Amino acid sequence: MSQPEDLPAIVAQVHHDMQRHLGRGKVADYIPALARIDPRNFAISIVTCDGRTASAGLAHVPFSIQSISKVFTLTMALNRLGGALWSRVWREPSGSRFNSIVQLEQEKGIPRNPLINAGALAVTDALLAAGDVDKTIDSIRAFLRRLAGDPSIVIDEEVAESEADTGFRNASLANFLRAFDNLQSPVEDVLRVYFHQCAIRMNTRQLARAGLYLANRGVDPISLGRVTTPFKSRRINAVMMTCGHYDASGDFACRVGLPGKSGVGGGILAIAPRKASICVWSPGLNAWGNSLVGSMALQRLTALTGWSVF
Amino acid sequence: MSQPEDLPAIVAQVHHDMQRHLGRGKVADYIPALARIDPRNFAISIVTCDGRTASAGLAHVPFSIQSISKVFTLTMALNRLGGALWSRVWREPSGSRFNSIVQLEQEKGIPRNPLINAGALAVTDALLAAGDVDKTIDSIRAFLRRLAGDPSIVIDEEVAESEADTGFRNASLANFLRAFDNLQSPVEDVLRVYFHQCAIRMNTRQLARAGLYLANRGVDPISLGRVTTPFKSRRINAVMMTCGHYDASGDFACRVGLPGKSGVGGGILAIAPRKASICVWSPGLNAWGNSLVGSMALQRLTALTGWSVF
Amino acid sequence: MSQPEDLPAIVAQVHHDMQRHLGRGKVADYIPALARIDPRNFAISIVTCDGRTASAGLAHVPFSIQSISKVFTLTMALNRLGGALWSRVWREPSGSRFNSIVQLEQEKGIPRNPLINAGALAVTDALLAAGDVDKTIDSIRAFLRRLAGDPSIVIDEEVAESEADTGFRNASLANFLRAFDNLQSPVEDVLRVYFHQCAIRMNTRQLARAGLYLANRGVDPISLGRVTTPFKSRRINAVMMTCGHYDASGDFACRVGLPGKSGVGGGILAIAPRKASICVWSPGLNAWGNSLVGSMALQRLTALTGWSVF
Amino acid sequence: MSQPEDLPAIVAQVHHDMQRHLGRGKVADYIPALARIDPRNFAISIVTCDGRTASAGLAHVPFSIQSISKVFTLTMALNRLGGALWSRVWREPSGSRFNSIVQLEQEKGIPRNPLINAGALAVTDALLAAGDVDKTIDSIRAFLRRLAGDPSIVIDEEVAESEADTGFRNASLANFLRAFDNLQSPVEDVLRVYFHQCAIRMNTRQLARAGLYLANRGVDPISLGRVTTPFKSRRINAVMMTCGHYDASGDFACRVGLPGKSGVGGGILAIAPRKASICVWSPGLNAWGNSLVGSMALQRLTALTGWSVF
Repeated sequence: MSQPEDLPAIVAQVHHDMQRHLGRGKVADYIPALARIDPRNFAISIVTCDGRTASAGLAHVPFSIQSISKVFTLTMALNRLGGALWSRVWREPSGSRFNSIVQLEQEKGIPRNPLINAGALAVTDALLAAGDVDKTIDSIRAFLRRLAGDPSIVIDEEVAESEADTGFRNASLANFLRAFDNLQSPVEDVLRVYFHQCAIRMNTRQLARAGLYLANRGVDPISLGRVTTPFKSRRINAVMMTCGHYDASGDFACRVGLPGKSGVGGGILAIAPRKASICVWSPGLNAWGNSLVGSMALQRLTALTGWSVF
Repeated sequence: MSQPEDLPAIVAQVHHDMQRHLGRGKVADYIPALARIDPRNFAISIVTCDGRTASAGLAHVPFSIQSISKVFTLTMALNRLGGALWSRVWREPSGSRFNSIVQLEQEKGIPRNPLINAGALAVTDALLAAGDVDKTIDSIRAFLRRLAGDPSIVIDEEVAESEADTGFRNASLANFLRAFDNLQSPVEDVLRVYFHQCAIRMNTRQLARAGLYLANRGVDPISLGRVTTPFKSRRINAVMMTCGHYDASGDFACRVGLPGKSGVGGGILAIAPRKASICVWSPGLNAWGNSLVGSMALQRLTALTGWSVF
Repeated sequence: MSQPEDLPAIVAQVHHDMQRHLGRGKVADYIPALARIDPRNFAISIVTCDGRTASAGLAHVPFSIQSISKVFTLTMALNRLGGALWSRVWREPSGSRFNSIVQLEQEKGIPRNPLINAGALAVTDALLAAGDVDKTIDSIRAFLRRLAGDPSIVIDEEVAESEADTGFRNASLANFLRAFDNLQSPVEDVLRVYFHQCAIRMNTRQLARAGLYLANRGVDPISLGRVTTPFKSRRINAVMMTCGHYDASGDFACRVGLPGKSGVGGGILAIAPRKASICVWSPGLNAWGNSLVGSMALQRLTALTGWSVF
Repeated sequence: MSQPEDLPAIVAQVHHDMQRHLGRGKVADYIPALARIDPRNFAISIVTCDGRTASAGLAHVPFSIQSISKVFTLTMALNRLGGALWSRVWREPSGSRFNSIVQLEQEKGIPRNPLINAGALAVTDALLAAGDVDKTIDSIRAFLRRLAGDPSIVIDEEVAESEADTGFRNASLANFLRAFDNLQSPVEDVLRVYFHQCAIRMNTRQLARAGLYLANRGVDPISLGRVTTPFKSRRINAVMMTCGHYDASGDFACRVGLPGKSGVGGGILAIAPRKASICVWSPGLNAWGNSLVGSMALQRLTALTGWSVF
């Protein structure tokens, strides 16, 4: 697996090319802790399957991973349930907003995929079946600490509480799932875990590192620990490709050409299969709730590296 | 680009493994010429970027390419219009049936992507702008003859006429596009071209050969002729990945892991970027209108070759 | 049936009260013949079950009856088919725009009610089953001439042709119905009849007179001729009440309290059961495609007369 | 106001004619207290504006009024807020199920009308603004006791608690409203009041008596007390006519021709303006959640009395 790219030069180039765009987009403002983030923040980190790393910008600054957490809870749930998970959530693009409830009614409580809010709630409920609220939160944090190789990763309790105070759309989705018997735990428990997984704080280095198993068929190429099977790893990547950016997933696939998952905190995790795991961060969001400059940075990166799978 | 696979052994294996499934699925029966096809037919052909070929089954038997034609008209329209095409059709998965009109109303006449019927009609209209009906039909057929390197490719007039007689859903879509000024040519002209492009008859060898430029960044690796730019080639593959199997595109991405496009005639064209172009044919369709055994064959193929992009 | 109202004073009052509103709303401009109508035109006519009449404004000026024709074709179709008609079209409010196609897909080609475009096309097709295009057009015109007692009523061929040139939404609906076998005649025949029925020109006097049977249980109280059964007359009124103003039917019921049907030409026919038939005309439309000042005039009228059924 | 009808004979006739249908339909079974009701129960009561009463069947047996309560909370909220209420809830038929959330998303948190669940929750929230949960529940019960002239009317706490345990769809709707700032009180408070108003137990005599003001322009013709204005009374009747039976409102208008409101407990309140208030009860529901035999009984009643407003 020869990868002759001069990674530091590439990330420096991407960082440089993004300078004139910094500050674009709209920072999520539905909770105070997100609203006060400086929209000009930017970071990019790459970890390759052969162990090289490179970063530029504020790669040491943690941010709220938000929906990027859905990739990791999906991995945990697939490991636990296997294919049985797909009876509770589909793996089709939704064609709808991240928090839409329309399809949930039309499709009788089965969310379109695990990367929209409704689907992620069902996945979280699947994890909850194995323990109580605190244990489940602990297990998700522990999973990310292990993947990132960093025991210092924490949950931002202020963010978690703020989400709980304002999360009426998610409460609506969770109650709807419950009405169709697609939640087994109490709504408030599922929401509590969900709000905590979203409130995990990580920086781009940690997130790129944590996602590396998805670039290497389920095995962390550095620790050589198996995280999931090659089969599941491919499926998670496929779901990220078709569903990872809500109703802008097709556009991301066209522009970037990598499986990816965005979070409303401004992060995007992208996977270059057999090559690298990448994380970018820029808090300003586009109209679809994905990091605007982050998407541009990844587009620039794949232009420079030729890493597009297409 | 080393590709040590024993292609003949692989296609033979796939062919063998599909034997017990032949006849599954439901042959399209909305027109007589499709309804009378033997559901047990099966073929698979591969052409690699380094010029090797392998086939199994009825690879010499032509069938109606139907919606696979959308990949080629999209290429032609992108070549002609460039990015301007995206103002007339999006590139997002629709989350809906291939012939759904719901989103077209909600989104004011802009189809979700060029691989659902509404989007393909807009693409065909874009081609029509450069000539009359007969010239446009000729140019599409000529494009496929050139790509396949086979001047014997023809249009099945019986199929084209049958489509015209029963194509009320497509006529509804075309009129709807026209109502939103997203068709410039007369509805009947657009439909006439569309029904003819769908009625082109090709076998799996010809189709695999014709799609090879998409596996090689827009250049036919055998003739070395440039068909489209690398940029456009990647975008077409991305659209095939996220949208090529209608509302089962996510499932196809999970199972097969390649950009692909199905047709109601039972064919599927799949692209393994930088490796190969593949075509399978089996007339029985699944509930989403995609070849049932064809999808299984491609899933088996990527399991054997590791060609999944994920 | 004592009706001591001083009708001439009432219509004069309504006419007077509308003066300051004349010109409000937006005249339909999708065809030239409608676009050039003076938005300040206004007329009101009342015919009571005991034979009194009163008018104010331009009650002698004919206008395009447009969708008001749907009430009369519904009567004709119910007379011909009886309850069997309800297997082809429901009688529920649609909650959608007059030309929406969304429900038609969700409900497999059965329109919500006969007063939205899709439903009216199915009704027209039912009439066509009894004859050719010209005969059917003749029979509709003859029906209105007989009801209005006025053989001079004509169809505006310019309007009919303009509709045909621009009626892509209706062509889309008709093709969709056909795709679900809910049209039996050729699409172009149904559209031709439909565009002609909409292009009938009548004034408020003629329309109020023509609708009088609906205020009198199906019998014209002046000629004593039976037009339809009491049972059907009640159902037509009920459909007008719940569906006559598209997705503003509930608002019209609240404000006016009478069964009514609007047309994009600015006319509204309203029925006060057991009392009177009323027609108003003012070409400016509100956001839902109903006459803005016409609705206000009817609201004023029922306030003055107490004719609300509620 | 002469009303020569022999009411006792009429209700006896309706009662007799329904005998062979008793037991049809499906009793609501989502909570035990409703599921165990005998589906063969039947009652009908009429109270006329001139003070006559007649009943047949189990008119003394109380049942859960469920959604019929929406008529009375709507009256209370209109009395308190006047037209300002219509900025929080529309008055259009929804064309959707009683508990649908689709339109609520499409229309940004404004329910279509006050007689579907989402709208009723907004109405209840409007009442809650004037007091705490217990006071609001008390005020609703007191309103019904006063209208029915019967201080013995109670709330079935078992039903209220069961609703709370299973009301996930309603919790989903309430959270959705809250997400769009169309609930001001806490979700759990609004739900608590709502589940209690639905759990009020009344018999057909009491309900017919309670609704009489709607037949008499807002004044109780027996006590001569004003309950609401004539203007508001007409609007409530209009909303009942167009929206009182969910997505079967059009059918009810056609068959019965009276404003009406059904409840999942099997009751229907119907208003014959200027004539009478009627309540029927039969627990078996049709596919739209309305009493099957109750609807038939009202259709028979209006056929016998000619009370249809159409």
